[in-house]
Amino acid sequence: MRHTSVQAPSVVDRVLDVFGAFSPERSVLSLSDLSRRARLPLSTTHRIVGELTRRGALERQEDGRYRVGLWLWEVASLSPRGMGLRENAMPFLEDLYEATHENVQLAVLDVPDVVYVERISGRNAVSVISRVGGRLAAHATGVGLVLLANAPAEVQEEVLSRPLKAYTSKTISSPERLRRVLADVRRDGFVISDRQVELVSRSVAAPVYGRDDTVVAAISIVVPAEGVDLRTLVPAVRAAARGISRSLGAPRALRQPF
Amino acid sequence: MRHTSVQAPSVVDRVLDVFGAFSPERSVLSLSDLSRRARLPLSTTHRIVGELTRRGALERQEDGRYRVGLWLWEVASLSPRGMGLRENAMPFLEDLYEATHENVQLAVLDVPDVVYVERISGRNAVSVISRVGGRLAAHATGVGLVLLANAPAEVQEEVLSRPLKAYTSKTISSPERLRRVLADVRRDGFVISDRQVELVSRSVAAPVYGRDDTVVAAISIVVPAEGVDLRTLVPAVRAAARGISRSLGAPRALRQPF
Repeated sequence: MRHTSVQAPSVVDRVLDVFGAFSPERSVLSLSDLSRRARLPLSTTHRIVGELTRRGALERQEDGRYRVGLWLWEVASLSPRGMGLRENAMPFLEDLYEATHENVQLAVLDVPDVVYVERISGRNAVSVISRVGGRLAAHATGVGLVLLANAPAEVQEEVLSRPLKAYTSKTISSPERLRRVLADVRRDGFVISDRQVELVSRSVAAPVYGRDDTVVAAISIVVPAEGVDLRTLVPAVRAAARGISRSLGAPRALRQPF
Repeated sequence: MRHTSVQAPSVVDRVLDVFGAFSPERSVLSLSDLSRRARLPLSTTHRIVGELTRRGALERQEDGRYRVGLWLWEVASLSPRGMGLRENAMPFLEDLYEATHENVQLAVLDVPDVVYVERISGRNAVSVISRVGGRLAAHATGVGLVLLANAPAEVQEEVLSRPLKAYTSKTISSPERLRRVLADVRRDGFVISDRQVELVSRSVAAPVYGRDDTVVAAISIVVPAEGVDLRTLVPAVRAAARGISRSLGAPRALRQPF
């Protein structure tokens, strides 16, 4: 949780720290877990958690532990970059999934990561480590390379100036190589990412444009590292990305194919 | 947003009131919109919104208006009744969708409503007014009848004691009739809801059981009012519900068919 307030954490900060105490690995927490993870006194945590629970932002389980409540999920479902984007994209992701039965993903950029807004996985598709609401380093993923390639120069420089985490021996981990790849992605309008996240998988990703013709998201299809000719998937991924862009009202998607 | 605190609203309440100001119809709000809808002084709203935006719980758009932020969506994606349930259900909902190309829905009970946690809609499926994160009165929907039928007696009585909103001329709006229908649903293990939400659609719904064999959710398939023999869909819906229950670890779904 970034913490840019200079003075002592406000009550607003404390509330967000309580929310931030939950993680994919720890989605159900006791009061003392919450106190420890939010770095708040037990008494403060008790008071805040009590109020959040009364309002349904948190839910208390039978075993006395707490989880993120349905009320918060309802509020968050109004996030345009979350559920809003997802609702527009879903029919096209469905088509892509049905045509391939591989993993289909929708992600947005939150430098230096990508956040997965949607994922459709066939029961027999290659396993992927991403999850809806989860994040991975942008430079290491197909969707991330598409999003970075289309991000403002200062955003790209920020990522290029950081250490580039290597998930596998194939991950792009040098700034020079990343710079070249981003240029290629801008030229091609799509990217093929080869075993950069896991050695078992590769992906094809393409950009999704918003109302102002800027790239607001990216979609990808993730397939096993062996046995699939990714070239054959490129047109399908680009067509789906274009369909989503059109449904978002992107002028360029209403004109010529990109 | 319910407001059960007796004393003056605390800062925690104010933060939740700011979140609660957003709605499906108003997912992007100006500072003054937020102040008015949250019933907070502009200065207070300005301070809270500033802190929430700094932490990413809200996002400020180019036009200066605010929307629910990606950070909050990530936190909310950890809600076990939201994304957690959805992740387990998705492969089975996929199968149901592919087999029928009709609307497939997953919902949980939040008395007196149902909240839709997932929806897969074919581009040519009959239109439905539900949306992911949205809610409808439980007594009027197939998923709601399944959830109410399996809810504790006091929950049922609470709903039966309230006025029952009639969405259409077919909506169950008398307590006596609702009582009979709930008894039937318990006996049958599924329900066919006929034009109770919209006159254009009908649905088949079945219960999803959790680890403790209580009903934690319901799924339904929504089809046009005419031209589909719903009986033919009952086994598919019940099988999918059972599959989800099994993936949630429901003992009864690991034993005999229900």
